Amino acid sequence: MECFDTHMHSEGKGITELKAMAEAGIKLAVSCAYYPVTPSHSSTLVDMFRKLTTFEVERGSKAGLRLIPAVGIHPRCICEDWQNALSWIEENGKVVGEIGLETASEVEVEVLSVQLELAKKLDLPCIVHTPKKNKLEVTEKVLEVVDRSGIGEELVVIDHATSGTVEKIIKRGFWAGLTVQPGKLSVEEAVSILENYGFESFVLNSDTGFNDFEMLTVAETVKALEERFDSGDVKKVAVENGKKLFKLR
Amino acid sequence: MECFDTHMHSEGKGITELKAMAEAGIKLAVSCAYYPVTPSHSSTLVDMFRKLTTFEVERGSKAGLRLIPAVGIHPRCICEDWQNALSWIEENGKVVGEIGLETASEVEVEVLSVQLELAKKLDLPCIVHTPKKNKLEVTEKVLEVVDRSGIGEELVVIDHATSGTVEKIIKRGFWAGLTVQPGKLSVEEAVSILENYGFESFVLNSDTGFNDFEMLTVAETVKALEERFDSGDVKKVAVENGKKLFKLR
Repeated sequence: MECFDTHMHSEGKGITELKAMAEAGIKLAVSCAYYPVTPSHSSTLVDMFRKLTTFEVERGSKAGLRLIPAVGIHPRCICEDWQNALSWIEENGKVVGEIGLETASEVEVEVLSVQLELAKKLDLPCIVHTPKKNKLEVTEKVLEVVDRSGIGEELVVIDHATSGTVEKIIKRGFWAGLTVQPGKLSVEEAVSILENYGFESFVLNSDTGFNDFEMLTVAETVKALEERFDSGDVKKVAVENGKKLFKLR
Repeated sequence: MECFDTHMHSEGKGITELKAMAEAGIKLAVSCAYYPVTPSHSSTLVDMFRKLTTFEVERGSKAGLRLIPAVGIHPRCICEDWQNALSWIEENGKVVGEIGLETASEVEVEVLSVQLELAKKLDLPCIVHTPKKNKLEVTEKVLEVVDRSGIGEELVVIDHATSGTVEKIIKRGFWAGLTVQPGKLSVEEAVSILENYGFESFVLNSDTGFNDFEMLTVAETVKALEERFDSGDVKKVAVENGKKLFKLR
């Protein structure tokens, strides 16, 4: 079954890896903005957005992979003049991401809030990161900030959800992102969450990027689901929910 | 035989690709600075240098590949305030690259000259690019600029040399870089150049980066050389010349 990796970082992947993803059935992926060292200036963010929305999309296409670029300021990429990167997002963004909270510091909350307001104003889908550390506590804070922004729930995926956070996320009407990757969810854990909560509110992703040896986890999860569930249901998390969320055809 | 890829762009490669290089015997590589869209501001260059000298070196190490970062302003990466990136190179650089000429415009010549002067002052090795287009003419111009700088020949590799440019390069005492990659030299062409000119003045590289499907060409070339030449000679281009040029142990 063709599938959609709703959150990865193509900038960390070589072209033979992007090709391997496409050959495994992952024909569509959202490539999220992220810079692996904290930028010293907003122009590093803007140039990264320019690279992501032009060069990376072309590179994906050469590999047989349709890349949807998401631009935004990640909580680990906040530079002093971060506000100066917003106008580029406002003028050019189609998907806002990866945004969210890492430590839930004051500046992180401000950067997230401002970007959610922007997304609300422009009616753009948002990919919202939750961290590994203090997962439950920071996810609560993320949900509070997103609620306060007043953005439509259908525009927001709360990402890297776990069995401990998923109920809170979908009860409030947001999409929950299941990230299948060593150190996050295993294929079995993702399957078990879907078995418990149904297929309506979920999207799958790998978050694969600069340091990950595994990049086919969405295809592997879809395969495992196909062995146990109705193909109509599987198709929802494999591709349809993601297309709805990101307004793609 | 272990070998040394003296010019690649690790930022364009995924970690499984870096690992494949190491597994093919390429245990050592120079990773050159390059940004795939023209930077809007010098801080994009500086942040890229920071990424290359920290994050990329660690990523190489995870993959079993020792990466030597080269920092410099590529002729296709010249932003308006490029001078502001020089102090970072001066304070932190160990190898200067990728520098050189693409169209040989006035500003390109200035950026190359200033960086050669810096390398001369600091006694640092330099990787100097020559373009595909107008190869012969622009290589002549590169040689003229390098000569004028007064930098020691033993510190300079004139890269992407071809059968048409190699004689001019080595006659003046510079190292010649043979880049084995589709669109540049084939394995056979590189072998034939070495057969004609000997092994003393050459280093091998792939220039593999963001868009290249082939990344093992240095190992392939070394293997082809081993079938025909004395292993002492092969070792010179496989690893020893590069270590001498870049002052490595």
